[in-house]
Amino acid sequence: MIIVVKKSAAEEQLQELCAYLHAQDLRTEISRGDAVTLVGVVGDSSCVDADRLLAWDIVETVKRISEPFQKTGRHKHPGDTVVEIAGVKLGGGHFAMIAGPCSVESREQILSVAQAVKAAGAKILRGGAYKPRSSPYDFQGLQEEGLALLLEAGKACALPVCAEIVSAAHLKEFEAVDLIQIGARNMQNFELLKEIARTGKPVLLKRGFSATLKELLMAAEYLMSGGCEQVVLCERGIRSFETQTRNTLDLSAVPALHELSHLPVVVDPSHATGAARYVPPMALAAAAAGADGLMIEVHNNPRFALSDASQALTPERFARLVCAVERVRAAAAEDGERG
Amino acid sequence: MIIVVKKSAAEEQLQELCAYLHAQDLRTEISRGDAVTLVGVVGDSSCVDADRLLAWDIVETVKRISEPFQKTGRHKHPGDTVVEIAGVKLGGGHFAMIAGPCSVESREQILSVAQAVKAAGAKILRGGAYKPRSSPYDFQGLQEEGLALLLEAGKACALPVCAEIVSAAHLKEFEAVDLIQIGARNMQNFELLKEIARTGKPVLLKRGFSATLKELLMAAEYLMSGGCEQVVLCERGIRSFETQTRNTLDLSAVPALHELSHLPVVVDPSHATGAARYVPPMALAAAAAGADGLMIEVHNNPRFALSDASQALTPERFARLVCAVERVRAAAAEDGERG
Amino acid sequence: MIIVVKKSAAEEQLQELCAYLHAQDLRTEISRGDAVTLVGVVGDSSCVDADRLLAWDIVETVKRISEPFQKTGRHKHPGDTVVEIAGVKLGGGHFAMIAGPCSVESREQILSVAQAVKAAGAKILRGGAYKPRSSPYDFQGLQEEGLALLLEAGKACALPVCAEIVSAAHLKEFEAVDLIQIGARNMQNFELLKEIARTGKPVLLKRGFSATLKELLMAAEYLMSGGCEQVVLCERGIRSFETQTRNTLDLSAVPALHELSHLPVVVDPSHATGAARYVPPMALAAAAAGADGLMIEVHNNPRFALSDASQALTPERFARLVCAVERVRAAAAEDGERG
Amino acid sequence: MIIVVKKSAAEEQLQELCAYLHAQDLRTEISRGDAVTLVGVVGDSSCVDADRLLAWDIVETVKRISEPFQKTGRHKHPGDTVVEIAGVKLGGGHFAMIAGPCSVESREQILSVAQAVKAAGAKILRGGAYKPRSSPYDFQGLQEEGLALLLEAGKACALPVCAEIVSAAHLKEFEAVDLIQIGARNMQNFELLKEIARTGKPVLLKRGFSATLKELLMAAEYLMSGGCEQVVLCERGIRSFETQTRNTLDLSAVPALHELSHLPVVVDPSHATGAARYVPPMALAAAAAGADGLMIEVHNNPRFALSDASQALTPERFARLVCAVERVRAAAAEDGERG
Repeated sequence: MIIVVKKSAAEEQLQELCAYLHAQDLRTEISRGDAVTLVGVVGDSSCVDADRLLAWDIVETVKRISEPFQKTGRHKHPGDTVVEIAGVKLGGGHFAMIAGPCSVESREQILSVAQAVKAAGAKILRGGAYKPRSSPYDFQGLQEEGLALLLEAGKACALPVCAEIVSAAHLKEFEAVDLIQIGARNMQNFELLKEIARTGKPVLLKRGFSATLKELLMAAEYLMSGGCEQVVLCERGIRSFETQTRNTLDLSAVPALHELSHLPVVVDPSHATGAARYVPPMALAAAAAGADGLMIEVHNNPRFALSDASQALTPERFARLVCAVERVRAAAAEDGERG
Repeated sequence: MIIVVKKSAAEEQLQELCAYLHAQDLRTEISRGDAVTLVGVVGDSSCVDADRLLAWDIVETVKRISEPFQKTGRHKHPGDTVVEIAGVKLGGGHFAMIAGPCSVESREQILSVAQAVKAAGAKILRGGAYKPRSSPYDFQGLQEEGLALLLEAGKACALPVCAEIVSAAHLKEFEAVDLIQIGARNMQNFELLKEIARTGKPVLLKRGFSATLKELLMAAEYLMSGGCEQVVLCERGIRSFETQTRNTLDLSAVPALHELSHLPVVVDPSHATGAARYVPPMALAAAAAGADGLMIEVHNNPRFALSDASQALTPERFARLVCAVERVRAAAAEDGERG
Repeated sequence: MIIVVKKSAAEEQLQELCAYLHAQDLRTEISRGDAVTLVGVVGDSSCVDADRLLAWDIVETVKRISEPFQKTGRHKHPGDTVVEIAGVKLGGGHFAMIAGPCSVESREQILSVAQAVKAAGAKILRGGAYKPRSSPYDFQGLQEEGLALLLEAGKACALPVCAEIVSAAHLKEFEAVDLIQIGARNMQNFELLKEIARTGKPVLLKRGFSATLKELLMAAEYLMSGGCEQVVLCERGIRSFETQTRNTLDLSAVPALHELSHLPVVVDPSHATGAARYVPPMALAAAAAGADGLMIEVHNNPRFALSDASQALTPERFARLVCAVERVRAAAAEDGERG
Repeated sequence: MIIVVKKSAAEEQLQELCAYLHAQDLRTEISRGDAVTLVGVVGDSSCVDADRLLAWDIVETVKRISEPFQKTGRHKHPGDTVVEIAGVKLGGGHFAMIAGPCSVESREQILSVAQAVKAAGAKILRGGAYKPRSSPYDFQGLQEEGLALLLEAGKACALPVCAEIVSAAHLKEFEAVDLIQIGARNMQNFELLKEIARTGKPVLLKRGFSATLKELLMAAEYLMSGGCEQVVLCERGIRSFETQTRNTLDLSAVPALHELSHLPVVVDPSHATGAARYVPPMALAAAAAGADGLMIEVHNNPRFALSDASQALTPERFARLVCAVERVRAAAAEDGERG
């Protein structure tokens, strides 16, 4: 951390600032320039709140040099983390398709979709039981019953299941869920993160609509520092001014997260685009960019889906996509360097 | 709701679509044009999920005409709602300053700030006990102890108190809190909204970083449809590409929310700008735009604040601001029409 | 176009509105509902300014049904346009790599890069002579001399050249340029668009930092309606709140533009990411998403590049990328449907 | 400027980097830390392209300390600049209303609006003759004729005039225009900026839809370094995800620009909001925030305006607003510190 101190600062004020830092077990190195004085802060400054320093009158600005990603950062953990979900591996060269309906709607529906995505090559079954919807008047999911049906379908098809949790009060119900999803709207619901971390279960953490990659990693720090070692990051589109797609899929997040962190990165093109016809090209693009997995919505009868109807693929389209994704991954992998 | 049907649709398909709508107790009026066919949907279409209609092959697009704000919308409730917080009124011409430190740090600090803001004219005391911080390594608030100190300070100074809740598990502790704040990161934490709604207590709902005004109102619908009639909306800056300020304060939200809804609108320039020097001009601007209240961070010693240090005003600066806000409100009010 | 008229409108006012539309050679169809009255506008309403209608007191809102892309829209031109640049084809299945340095810096530099990218498989040579730079104190390009050197290098290597134009006053100089680039900052410099359109030369039109896809197509309408039939659209990243990459590459633009328009779509991952290490994964992703070409910055000695130094690939890295792009395109193409 | 060099850098590489900087007349101060080595760059580093430094393998990151606003920055010019437009002053405590129609439409229209806004207290008449429109099929302005009519109306009412220029080819026509406007879409049309700068005339420079405040100041640097001393900055709304207003008016730009620069700042709430009913509250808010002027669209018959019809005020509403703005300015001014 470098603190840029105003030229107008009195020596006494500068010493007061240094004393404040020394009290936090940090060393300081002062370098006086023509226009400003620099105070280099040596030691573990990750706990220093830059914001508090800015409240000192003599401080012009504060520049962090190292990023404070103690658990999620690649600098302390150079190798890729491989997350294992009931035997299915993600990361470090392992790739998996996560597929299923937006919402679990009935036994027939979830069983039929589960069989279809299994046959097509999906490795994990997804399905929403508790749905966070913008409007209180929209379908909120089958809840407890939906979760039971999802688990039943997963068992029937021998697929691990992934479901979104919306409240720590449901944790008991989620005990049999193999991969707990934290949705975009809850990425910074830190109390939920802390509670889930304690379970030690694998977690898929979706990036918030307007979260920076660094905020996503800080949210993952809550999970990792709280006891959860198995975190999968998920890019699902960010909010921009463009309205042609529901969100703007930020695929640069894939190489950028791989650079900053050792955690696997999954992409969800279904929620990002909000339109089934854009899902296959974006899924292939994500695979080419180096994603460790894809999360795709599949519905046996999209027209009658109870939520996010317009973005689900039919099982047939999904099966064709799985093959194309495999080919694209193979083609891209030979490029040598990791995305 | 108007459904635009593709020219290529067969009569049979069109009838199938209409039958689907009739089954939902809606009437349809078909109007055939040269390029497209329009299906006007008559009846309460607020429960129809536009997204599901888009999954029909023959549907080109769906246009909503009325907005589905059943409780928060002004169309069904033309007069302004006046929210009353332990005797302090907000909305419908009533204005209040909510002020206090970002975090409660000690008995001395909160008592001293409470006395200072009371003397300066604040009507409600704010103070964070549970702090949602981006990093797990940052100060998370004094929690239970902080809340007790805030309540003590409020009592000592005869000021109602406002504090942010981050988990429904804390609801019991918040029983004595007069105005429960839901922070920007939890605006779409629907489970929290539902639980708080049940208490029937007054709520201050902050707009999410990247929430549209309609999403803010839909979040307020969760509160109102769940039993909370006393909702105060709060604009606190949205996320944009500009980095000179922490967020971009969207003051147009004030007249726009007043137009769409009957609920009072408060502005928080402290979190929006992230810089104490920008707080006074933005506070005055908010008052001029017609805000029903302001939420301002005040600290007796900003330099040593444990969170958001750079954005707090000193009590002296705050006192001067309160006077200026009053003058500006009076000057703007004569313009006749409400913002 | 559908005009939603307020319930409160008097019959007389409604008739006045219809008369206003009839005077513009449009027919109207009125449909009275419980809450609102709809006026369907039949005929070519692409010239009606929706904004003017909103200024009528009785008008609640205006919904356009057809998009006004008369020349660029796919609805009137279902087949893909193939743009031909001195023998090199782009679009309709034809793919080309456009490569070269950000700026032409010297005869040696541009010749050496031209030979290297030609050998690696590039089909068009790019190089900036007039550089639009945010700061007037930054290197502005070699200008006239730079353009001459670029043309010389193109000739020597038998590569068509692409260069950015920044002023219509330079059009004479650009006569020998095969593909004229309009940069992101000039996408809505309509006077420049009109002047260039008159030359009838092939144009590469970059999307503005904050332009929607519809605005990009409207800018292309300026070119096409002005006489230029050979327009290549280019996605180069949009502005978002994320700062890890210079811009946010919006790859959904590829399938979305292909859906809306018949024009070829090229992607520039170099400017989008601003970092050489992110260029290969994003280039592969763009190829997988169905791009008709890529524009990549290559420099023989990135460290000493006079502009955008941190984003250029070395010729060796570029050569490896060209092969990977070919493999990925082949792998993605078999997916059947066009991106 | 501080260059953060990777720990892994060899001494030899570090020396090579320093030699490169010394060759640019800069001094370097090396400070070795545990994790990184810092190179402080002493001297005028405003011409050093940080981007080029990032292309060195050993460079981790580059931090600028001083901002490179040589002409527009307040650090070298602490007092406010007062721009004088044919006798009307803006900045340094001088405030002016600029008002008129979006487009000049006819002699009657512009004369009638000019008289009305003059009577209401406007100090400068605005009117568009050349209109940059997103669609080539929309009304493009009366052009040469429109400019003549505007000048005639200005003369008749003894009001200086402000008109937008869209091409340097029109500069001769604009000789009699008192304040030349550069629109948002042309803020980074650097060739236009350079040509206009040469005239030395007062310029009103609008912020681009997605331009940061620093980019706006860099665009103003093009004007000032090219010979134009009389620059007025104009905030007119930025692009965000919110769709309730046409753009998001960023009023924090007022205090932020006043802090960074000595130039006057004008606010245009008409284009920012796109809705006449939001213009008065936003105009008052801008005045309260410390704006040096306002630019407001006024039309004698908004319903029949040929462009931006929905955002114009009637002359009566404008007159009432002028009085309220005065009252609000007076009320806010007493707050002591400048916004």
